[in-house]
Amino acid sequence: MNIAEKNASIDERATRSMNEVYQLSTMTSLLDGVYESDMTFAKLKKFGDFGIGTFNHLDGELIAFDNQFYQLKSGTAKLVEPDDKSPFCSLTHFTTDITYKVDGPVTRVELENLIKDLVHSENLFYAIRVDGVFKDMKTRTVSYQDHPVPMTEAVKSQPVYSFQNIKGTLAGFWTPMFVQGIAVGGFHLHFIDDARTGGGHVFDYVLDYGTIQISKKTNMNLELPETEAFLNANLSRSDLADELEKTEGSN
Amino acid sequence: MNIAEKNASIDERATRSMNEVYQLSTMTSLLDGVYESDMTFAKLKKFGDFGIGTFNHLDGELIAFDNQFYQLKSGTAKLVEPDDKSPFCSLTHFTTDITYKVDGPVTRVELENLIKDLVHSENLFYAIRVDGVFKDMKTRTVSYQDHPVPMTEAVKSQPVYSFQNIKGTLAGFWTPMFVQGIAVGGFHLHFIDDARTGGGHVFDYVLDYGTIQISKKTNMNLELPETEAFLNANLSRSDLADELEKTEGSN
Repeated sequence: MNIAEKNASIDERATRSMNEVYQLSTMTSLLDGVYESDMTFAKLKKFGDFGIGTFNHLDGELIAFDNQFYQLKSGTAKLVEPDDKSPFCSLTHFTTDITYKVDGPVTRVELENLIKDLVHSENLFYAIRVDGVFKDMKTRTVSYQDHPVPMTEAVKSQPVYSFQNIKGTLAGFWTPMFVQGIAVGGFHLHFIDDARTGGGHVFDYVLDYGTIQISKKTNMNLELPETEAFLNANLSRSDLADELEKTEGSN
Repeated sequence: MNIAEKNASIDERATRSMNEVYQLSTMTSLLDGVYESDMTFAKLKKFGDFGIGTFNHLDGELIAFDNQFYQLKSGTAKLVEPDDKSPFCSLTHFTTDITYKVDGPVTRVELENLIKDLVHSENLFYAIRVDGVFKDMKTRTVSYQDHPVPMTEAVKSQPVYSFQNIKGTLAGFWTPMFVQGIAVGGFHLHFIDDARTGGGHVFDYVLDYGTIQISKKTNMNLELPETEAFLNANLSRSDLADELEKTEGSN
């Protein structure tokens, strides 16, 4: 490879990283109770300024946008530390391809259908951000686990929060259904309030008014951990749809 | 980002590309009859020197190793041209992590179990190469399709070839089952004879003697096409396992 080719190749990889969703580990391993990795947010931040995920020991929900990373735990929100670690997250460099103002109220299902109309195809990845005022917002935050129990067990004790007429930001992804099991297929969004005091994994909401921003992504960079827990995990989930409904569904 | 950080980031991406399987498009779209893309092998070769896949219009089977790319069509093998295009392929930079000599004969199932023992975990990607003499080798080559019929239809007319006591090379991948639908979960291997006259997608074989080489990969770089055919494809395959058995299985 000569210098020109090498530079072209480097440019191509840089471009590619702008087009990609970085996916650390898999949803199947989280379902099997693999809650630890050695990936710090100091490293992870290179893969994006926007995203969602969780923390080692399932210690809360991650939401990130504008390169601000927050850890949402039972009724609180705090900035993520560089040494904090994640066993599972989805990150990207958010560049706005579509902006759409919503004058509601619109339900979650109505907003999801609106986003599907805006993007035309369900076969690509889309990072999604909604800033606005929500008439209702129902979230949960997963809780610190001492032991690697299956996630269907871990969520049985999760605190659920309801907010009314709250200003804040939704952030997350539309993931094509053929990626189900690696990530969560369909919509997967987290929420934080404008005062940065709380939020979590989103179950349901009614948006009063706000602005949708959508960032289209054509690539996924899946990174698999080489921890003993991941290598030995049972990732053949015979009842994947049911497990995902129990752990991530809008119950 | 300062210069040192930028260089570190470039080094990281270069390393990452050595650790990755590059996956162009998805098995689900091939099942739906999406047989064209604008990706030439001139571009694709940057993502690896080893791999398998197919060609636009489903015009034969790809096998690549030692940076030699071959197109296997009905009873023939020829070198791939830079302008040839692929709608679906899996490529990687092959670096040998494990070498193992086999003094057989061993059946396909016995060899697959041996490889599983060698790699310890089924949860990562492995590029697999076997050079040897095969007592029996049964392959097929998919055929040029004028129209985007479902792949289950396209394979009904595929020529099947049997070879005896043939020297040649198997190349392909072990893909973790949670990637089923994007690629083919499990083992997926192609074959070419040593004289470079024929081969194809592998159904079954008995290895007399030979050498296994395995290259472990922790990342997958999935690239989705933005062709109208891909964007509009039905990628929710309700009977994925059955379709894959019909199109890729050891029938």
